[in-house]
Amino acid sequence: MAEFLQSGIFRCSVPVMIESYSSVVGKKEGEGPLGKFFDEIIEDSHFGKETWEQAESRFQLEAVSHAIRKAGLTKEDIHLICSGDLINQCIGSTYGLRELGIPYLGIYGACSTMAEGILISSLAVEAGAVNRSAAVTSSHFSTAERQFRFPLSYGGQRTPTSQWTCTASGALILSRKKGDMEVVGGCIGKITDMGVNDINNMGSAMAPAAAETIKRYLEATSTSPADYDLIVTGDLGLVGSTLLTEILSKQNIDITSVHKDCGKLIFDPDDKDTHCGGSGCGCSASVLCGYFLPMLERGEIKNLLFTATGALMSPLSLQQGESIPTIAHLVHIRSKK
Amino acid sequence: MAEFLQSGIFRCSVPVMIESYSSVVGKKEGEGPLGKFFDEIIEDSHFGKETWEQAESRFQLEAVSHAIRKAGLTKEDIHLICSGDLINQCIGSTYGLRELGIPYLGIYGACSTMAEGILISSLAVEAGAVNRSAAVTSSHFSTAERQFRFPLSYGGQRTPTSQWTCTASGALILSRKKGDMEVVGGCIGKITDMGVNDINNMGSAMAPAAAETIKRYLEATSTSPADYDLIVTGDLGLVGSTLLTEILSKQNIDITSVHKDCGKLIFDPDDKDTHCGGSGCGCSASVLCGYFLPMLERGEIKNLLFTATGALMSPLSLQQGESIPTIAHLVHIRSKK
Repeated sequence: MAEFLQSGIFRCSVPVMIESYSSVVGKKEGEGPLGKFFDEIIEDSHFGKETWEQAESRFQLEAVSHAIRKAGLTKEDIHLICSGDLINQCIGSTYGLRELGIPYLGIYGACSTMAEGILISSLAVEAGAVNRSAAVTSSHFSTAERQFRFPLSYGGQRTPTSQWTCTASGALILSRKKGDMEVVGGCIGKITDMGVNDINNMGSAMAPAAAETIKRYLEATSTSPADYDLIVTGDLGLVGSTLLTEILSKQNIDITSVHKDCGKLIFDPDDKDTHCGGSGCGCSASVLCGYFLPMLERGEIKNLLFTATGALMSPLSLQQGESIPTIAHLVHIRSKK
Repeated sequence: MAEFLQSGIFRCSVPVMIESYSSVVGKKEGEGPLGKFFDEIIEDSHFGKETWEQAESRFQLEAVSHAIRKAGLTKEDIHLICSGDLINQCIGSTYGLRELGIPYLGIYGACSTMAEGILISSLAVEAGAVNRSAAVTSSHFSTAERQFRFPLSYGGQRTPTSQWTCTASGALILSRKKGDMEVVGGCIGKITDMGVNDINNMGSAMAPAAAETIKRYLEATSTSPADYDLIVTGDLGLVGSTLLTEILSKQNIDITSVHKDCGKLIFDPDDKDTHCGGSGCGCSASVLCGYFLPMLERGEIKNLLFTATGALMSPLSLQQGESIPTIAHLVHIRSKK
């Protein structure tokens, strides 16, 4: 039975291991600094489909299928799949995974989805309800831009604090059987809203949620940043990352030497289009599964805190004058090497 | 540790008990046949707020708060809350629960959300990760109608197979401490798509998913319909319910004597507006928490299978020519009396 530390924070007691993982990204992400680390780069933004939404579904299906193949498993070996995305009603996930026939739990955590999927999968494995569970998510620049901002053909000017939604998917398979990395524990995020209402400054909106979650986990586990090789955030980008370190610094928590942000890493900082960096559920999912998990698997790093952040508003809620509620879920992953 | 029966199906080993529950519905639902059973009836469809979305959020907050009060607990006693709704990006949930400060997992299962929330909460309690977890969901006629069908002021004619989205919310609190009912086990649904693409005939789209889930659970547990006092479905309505019993009958499973459908129960069958019955996440959630759980608590029935069904399409996916993927999650609840 898992060890209950405090509200929303737990430590696994049975081994919850990462048996397989994969990352599939689009052309622009493949041309970025992490390009060589991803399993697959899909040059065609439609991925052979008629619509962007269908393309996003295919990215997700491909990421899961790749992870299953890599582990020498079949879809029948996976007893649960937790997935969600940014498209209304999460159709990127439901249509993408429909053909698999794997028991499915749909989740919505915006860009925090990958961490949320890993947390729920870990609980299911820890509880003994399943032997293997997959977590997967995706995002697509064109589906997100149309839905959350402007039609692409409008050619709108992007603000300096904006981030670029990644066309990407990441998937991993948790198992009680085998794996070189294990989920040590996790921290389920609380909804945090500091009153930010600028849809083009998500990093600033989400940084307080990341700070709250990281601080809460460190306190509950009586650990400090020095106990981790890396504290990774989802997609705070340039502005949000600076804000995160400032917020924590004021509370005497210095993460500067171990902090990395997936949104800052995925694109070239000199790329004029991407401004503050990458975003979208697929950003942190693909960077975790493409870049960080291999480092853990090779034993180059031992302890990693993966903290994916999400903005839980909608275009409609902003039109109605609301601010942006945000959340950050944390997963502690340890290399067994 | 939970007993793993087969892919997606588990039996709880530690007691996962229902400590509290509540239902809050709108005026029309309060005037229906179940009106006297609900905890609160809110006459004002705006619930004192400026927009329907804000009203739906308040329904959800009220349902959770009522359940917490009823158990003599405070929000600090709840270590996790699982919630989702039908509005894009689930803003009914995120804005509604924002002020509680309870660790939050956002879920999307359309009208299957209540069962999904109970399943994830059960896994978290079973795993030992939390002492108490809440599951809650909501729907609102006006937020759903505008988003999925037509602007209300358009006055569109409704088709005979259509259902009426309930303005309602239901919440329950699962606990390892105490309760007169327990979650025995569950079956996580698989995405099922039989090619139906009529947004006004959701019952027919969802019936095959309900049949698949019920059949799978009965087989895995070596039980038959006679072992249950009631097999309740979420919101198949008149057409979907008939289809469900037909599908199962062809597989030699006769549920007719124990089957009840929340969508059929909540409105007067002679109500000309509601056609095939109620729908929406709040329909099965409020009928479970207002009508069925009290029956279990009083010991009038012993074993209940709650099977909430959801349609996982979006208006956009239908515009793109897709059919409707559906899902049904099942929870087995037993009275301890």
